[in-house]
Amino acid sequence: MTERTRKEGRERGEEWWSTEIIEMRPGMIRLRGYPIEDLIGRVSFPAMIWLMLRGELPTEAQASLLGTALGAAVDHGPQAPLIAIARMAATCGVGINSAMASAINVLGDVHGGAGEQALGFFGDIAAAMDAGQSLEDAVADRVDRFFARSGYVPGLGHRFHPVDPRAPRLLELVREAARQGTVSGRFADIAEAVEAAVERRKGKRIPLNIDGATAVIYGELGFPPPLTRGLFVLSRSVGILAHAWEQSQYPDRNKGPLPREWLWAYEGTPERRLPEASEP
Amino acid sequence: MTERTRKEGRERGEEWWSTEIIEMRPGMIRLRGYPIEDLIGRVSFPAMIWLMLRGELPTEAQASLLGTALGAAVDHGPQAPLIAIARMAATCGVGINSAMASAINVLGDVHGGAGEQALGFFGDIAAAMDAGQSLEDAVADRVDRFFARSGYVPGLGHRFHPVDPRAPRLLELVREAARQGTVSGRFADIAEAVEAAVERRKGKRIPLNIDGATAVIYGELGFPPPLTRGLFVLSRSVGILAHAWEQSQYPDRNKGPLPREWLWAYEGTPERRLPEASEP
Amino acid sequence: MTERTRKEGRERGEEWWSTEIIEMRPGMIRLRGYPIEDLIGRVSFPAMIWLMLRGELPTEAQASLLGTALGAAVDHGPQAPLIAIARMAATCGVGINSAMASAINVLGDVHGGAGEQALGFFGDIAAAMDAGQSLEDAVADRVDRFFARSGYVPGLGHRFHPVDPRAPRLLELVREAARQGTVSGRFADIAEAVEAAVERRKGKRIPLNIDGATAVIYGELGFPPPLTRGLFVLSRSVGILAHAWEQSQYPDRNKGPLPREWLWAYEGTPERRLPEASEP
Amino acid sequence: MTERTRKEGRERGEEWWSTEIIEMRPGMIRLRGYPIEDLIGRVSFPAMIWLMLRGELPTEAQASLLGTALGAAVDHGPQAPLIAIARMAATCGVGINSAMASAINVLGDVHGGAGEQALGFFGDIAAAMDAGQSLEDAVADRVDRFFARSGYVPGLGHRFHPVDPRAPRLLELVREAARQGTVSGRFADIAEAVEAAVERRKGKRIPLNIDGATAVIYGELGFPPPLTRGLFVLSRSVGILAHAWEQSQYPDRNKGPLPREWLWAYEGTPERRLPEASEP
Repeated sequence: MTERTRKEGRERGEEWWSTEIIEMRPGMIRLRGYPIEDLIGRVSFPAMIWLMLRGELPTEAQASLLGTALGAAVDHGPQAPLIAIARMAATCGVGINSAMASAINVLGDVHGGAGEQALGFFGDIAAAMDAGQSLEDAVADRVDRFFARSGYVPGLGHRFHPVDPRAPRLLELVREAARQGTVSGRFADIAEAVEAAVERRKGKRIPLNIDGATAVIYGELGFPPPLTRGLFVLSRSVGILAHAWEQSQYPDRNKGPLPREWLWAYEGTPERRLPEASEP
Repeated sequence: MTERTRKEGRERGEEWWSTEIIEMRPGMIRLRGYPIEDLIGRVSFPAMIWLMLRGELPTEAQASLLGTALGAAVDHGPQAPLIAIARMAATCGVGINSAMASAINVLGDVHGGAGEQALGFFGDIAAAMDAGQSLEDAVADRVDRFFARSGYVPGLGHRFHPVDPRAPRLLELVREAARQGTVSGRFADIAEAVEAAVERRKGKRIPLNIDGATAVIYGELGFPPPLTRGLFVLSRSVGILAHAWEQSQYPDRNKGPLPREWLWAYEGTPERRLPEASEP
Repeated sequence: MTERTRKEGRERGEEWWSTEIIEMRPGMIRLRGYPIEDLIGRVSFPAMIWLMLRGELPTEAQASLLGTALGAAVDHGPQAPLIAIARMAATCGVGINSAMASAINVLGDVHGGAGEQALGFFGDIAAAMDAGQSLEDAVADRVDRFFARSGYVPGLGHRFHPVDPRAPRLLELVREAARQGTVSGRFADIAEAVEAAVERRKGKRIPLNIDGATAVIYGELGFPPPLTRGLFVLSRSVGILAHAWEQSQYPDRNKGPLPREWLWAYEGTPERRLPEASEP
Repeated sequence: MTERTRKEGRERGEEWWSTEIIEMRPGMIRLRGYPIEDLIGRVSFPAMIWLMLRGELPTEAQASLLGTALGAAVDHGPQAPLIAIARMAATCGVGINSAMASAINVLGDVHGGAGEQALGFFGDIAAAMDAGQSLEDAVADRVDRFFARSGYVPGLGHRFHPVDPRAPRLLELVREAARQGTVSGRFADIAEAVEAAVERRKGKRIPLNIDGATAVIYGELGFPPPLTRGLFVLSRSVGILAHAWEQSQYPDRNKGPLPREWLWAYEGTPERRLPEASEP
């Protein structure tokens, strides 16, 4: 975008910030070529998200499935660091946007990256199938590889939920969408084959989690893996905002992680004096 | 939420983080009392946002109007600081969540606060009407006050757009929703009366802008002013993500604000030497 | 900086980012006019901070007093929200810079603003003295005003420490610096007069806290109040980094605010079903 | 820190936030075992940084060298994305702490990680020497490896400066510190051997840059590579603050990356209409 041409002056400056997303002139705003006033009231919010990210409008059935995935992951409670952060930040005299920013900022590789890894894994299986492998073989090969490496397969299992109640419901909706021709159902097949392969190896069922289930939807809808982290940010921002807002209705100031009358345990060096400080 | 009772031990710790938003046990997630698996696929994404923020489900007509407001404000291009920030951040080797956080963080009083101010202004007029004043008087009094103080009335006028193309379309949709009984149309009346009052004083029309138009919708739907800044964050996050994502597809590294071969102008003290440095 | 002239093209772009802080050409970097290679190894880190913020080099005695204030406020433990945030963020798979950013971001009006308010208060008294009022009268007038308004005087008292051990030591150092002619001692006089005036009104001593004590130093050194929030960020960033770093040495992932086996208390609506969900 | 013991109740909660850095009781603050009032005025700001990060006090010669490295990297001007971000954020109605946070947040792998990579590289050579390899062989092997992989050796070369004026001056100071016994000089030897090895391969000199030069100092002082990114944040925060502060003195609001009267170039889909929108 930035090095291709060698314009000069203002034209060069304007090219430095070029984009394919939005065109603007006084009194005119177009998103991906569509006049904004045509879009407003004609396409749903999830369809607008899709248009902005993908460049084309989805069908409303696709948009609705996207909205379902976004709605399913809005919150997992204040024991998640990002929600705790949003709530504490809301007591520190910053705007609600800043409370949200501090929280969104920690949706890093460990938390925000789980769906991305799951979709990368499922997409890799899909690619192997495109290259001629059977579903069973493609899954078996890749599950073996993960077991050899770490014993951990992305998109399955949950520290807290024996069965994540969101996952089977989301899969059900993908199956329904497949029956209606909205999606192919291929990523649902892959996810279930992965579940089965892991069960055979472990001797117990480790069910799909929310990251795996939303990865199935995002995969069915054609989103590339790294973009799904961004979709998760959009989704979880709703819970972040709800918690920051609820907290801001209370009078707490500088809310810490533990009740106000508690203290952390100190486990460091016992009291000592500076060498010079011990002199008279 | 935190000082009311004096429980002890674990119970005290758990109370410290109490919330009315989400209930969780292994295998169970409820949002505002509703099992998550009931919500998934049954309510739209904007309805989920509403439920999380307000505690009750909206009608789908209300949710749709909320989604329209959210969709209308997703982007205003890379000359806005927050979009430029998202794009630069995306070239610095941080996750897309962090690029989004750096950008969301600047939706402060100057930018993110405009809708909040507009809704506060409109709501103040509505309250005066509830107390018995006529629309005309309530508007005239408050517009006078703003003119006396700053000459600036929140929600009207745009630096760039003579007429913001989003605003009249949004007002049209509010009028339609009023005809269908989804909203009362009261904030639309107020906004138009404000426009007219300002026109009388200035001798020229200063039309409603996007902040004023979305404030009308949020007011019609019953959102309190400070929460609208949070809604704006949810909305603009879509544009932030789209721009961060587009930028991340290019090879730029450490993208600066000006073309790479340009430099800023230096306007400070001319070269000088440390006193000691000039000694032999 | 931005609207004064109407240059065009590249020159206009470069002017848009003009600064008095740094001048650069290939192979040349000057800070406030000084070649960087002259500064390196010749001025201390606090002196560099001063030069960057104020435009002139301090004496090393001044720089040392600045360094003392910066060093005194580096940490107040993980029950402060910003330290808890830094530690939780460090377990989420983001860079240490992002963990620091999420934490620094919450040094808002409630926490980071306390020193700014204290210095504003002390500076207001100093200005009244410049206008001819006696120390006693200037203090009495303003303490009365604060008592009438909120009962709260900035820079005094601490929720946790009966006497903040940092404050008397810092005051002692200001007195020493005054004896050596580094500072005038005027803000120390003001702070002590404020303490005495509050004691007379309340009937008990409410001693200077760290915000008040560092405000004295920053005032003595001539820093404007809003800049002291930035100095506090530089100072507390050290503690933020230390805690983020210590936490990153542990294997925790997605560390929440409470022990892993605890849950928050839910205080919201009891379980309920969607209207449609109850149908067969 | 968190899973070792199984205490209960408050004790378990307090253990969850245990630390070796700070001990606190009402009226008492100890950092790494030292009463804070003993440290204040007795150790320099860089020594305080060292104590907090390393757990022990440095000699003042060591602290001074650390301060030199911190002071050398405070700023590289507003064409760096993080400085541009700080300046734009300062015009958006957020606190200076939030302007700083948005900027610090982008010191990611691409920018903030360069010193970390350089120190990792140099430290790897040092480890090979400890295992018996000669300096020349250890360097040659690793430079070969980098050339085979990417042609890029960390810590050398600068996009803008033919010779970075900070680097030779910093190396000179390391040599001086080695003569005085403050450091061993080993990382300086390694860096110079790397420069020489690269020159032999490329046929031209690619001199040490600021990241390489500070990596030498941090290596000499015994800092582990990932911590050096945190040190860089502390250092560059000074420039971030200076620029945010300078910008906040100007009246700009919502400062964008280009002069206000410019626009970005649009390179996307030409105008199009929604299918339904074209219907009568």
